[in-house]
Amino acid sequence: MYLGRVVGRLWATIKNENLTGQRFLVVQPVTPELQDRGRPLVCTDATGAGAGELIYWVRAREASYALLPGEVPTDSTVVGIVDSVHVKRS
Amino acid sequence: MYLGRVVGRLWATIKNENLTGQRFLVVQPVTPELQDRGRPLVCTDATGAGAGELIYWVRAREASYALLPGEVPTDSTVVGIVDSVHVKRS
Amino acid sequence: MYLGRVVGRLWATIKNENLTGQRFLVVQPVTPELQDRGRPLVCTDATGAGAGELIYWVRAREASYALLPGEVPTDSTVVGIVDSVHVKRS
Amino acid sequence: MYLGRVVGRLWATIKNENLTGQRFLVVQPVTPELQDRGRPLVCTDATGAGAGELIYWVRAREASYALLPGEVPTDSTVVGIVDSVHVKRS
Amino acid sequence: MYLGRVVGRLWATIKNENLTGQRFLVVQPVTPELQDRGRPLVCTDATGAGAGELIYWVRAREASYALLPGEVPTDSTVVGIVDSVHVKRS
Repeated sequence: MYLGRVVGRLWATIKNENLTGQRFLVVQPVTPELQDRGRPLVCTDATGAGAGELIYWVRAREASYALLPGEVPTDSTVVGIVDSVHVKRS
Repeated sequence: MYLGRVVGRLWATIKNENLTGQRFLVVQPVTPELQDRGRPLVCTDATGAGAGELIYWVRAREASYALLPGEVPTDSTVVGIVDSVHVKRS
Repeated sequence: MYLGRVVGRLWATIKNENLTGQRFLVVQPVTPELQDRGRPLVCTDATGAGAGELIYWVRAREASYALLPGEVPTDSTVVGIVDSVHVKRS
Repeated sequence: MYLGRVVGRLWATIKNENLTGQRFLVVQPVTPELQDRGRPLVCTDATGAGAGELIYWVRAREASYALLPGEVPTDSTVVGIVDSVHVKRS
Repeated sequence: MYLGRVVGRLWATIKNENLTGQRFLVVQPVTPELQDRGRPLVCTDATGAGAGELIYWVRAREASYALLPGEVPTDSTVVGIVDSVHVKRS
């Protein structure tokens, strides 16, 4: 799973029917020290996260588990909103 | 899921039979700010998107969900045409 | 599978219900020579590993196998604590 | 799916039994403009492609779909030989 | 699938029970011209390969197919020992 920050939303009228009703968030990956890092992506959402919130998301088939039942054609879903991260590099 | 722009098409007569009837689009990944970024790829299409359109696609096994029934050997499928993207980086 | 070092933990109250009860570790990937390399990530834990320990984790669907039964929406899980690594490059 | 060019073959006597009878091609990824890009890989083959041919391949679990029945432990399979690619970047 | 060379081994007493009895190899990815390239990783082994041998491995769910029956939480498994590679770039 990866840390990220919600930086936007996406709207799409024409889409695969199994995506109907999903919310699409634009997510910027961040490091545990909360610096931007790497390529933003579009995630479906299983949490109700809003703009600016720190979240983590899953990739690949596991992204669908959070949106059961059904076979949702997504490969990245926000599954949690972060309360805190504690990092100590020795 | 990732944002991209349709930049071309691909034709192939000799192919796996489970790919028969599929449309193949050449997609250039773009950032939420719509700048080109990263390596173009070939996607099957579940939307009817045309040249120049802004789309998003899924990777891996989820790419097949959009093309059910059957086991289509694809790992990237265009699943939506983008109406608008709103991004705000604080 | 990849080698890493546990460098932190993450707490999240609001999360997908299938993640309830899971422990979240922040993992820094390392080389076989134990140098930091690449992007830290958040893993579920199947071992009880603590801060500073050298571990290895799996990605993708296999990450769920370690947390059966159930369909846990994770794509990276710590599955072992490393006793020793022997590397010889000829 | 990704574009590539067949640049070689690989032979292996000792291998997992589910790979018996498969053909192994060395594939160099290329861009839609047919420039080499990225790391060569070894693919199983579902097309009969030969040296120098332009092909596209799939990754991950979908690579097995092209080689059914059976559970073939491959993560990359050549699934089509390219007739032509048309790319127009506006 | 990817080419690699076995450069070491890893021992782990505390690990997920489904990994019991598996052998862990440290693998350095190489190009078809046998140059080191990219990040070493830890693979389970389905071949009995030893130090210094040229092998190829699979990623993701397919890595488990080589270790059936059972659901082994691995995402990379050595599935063949290479006899020879022939590469010709035109």
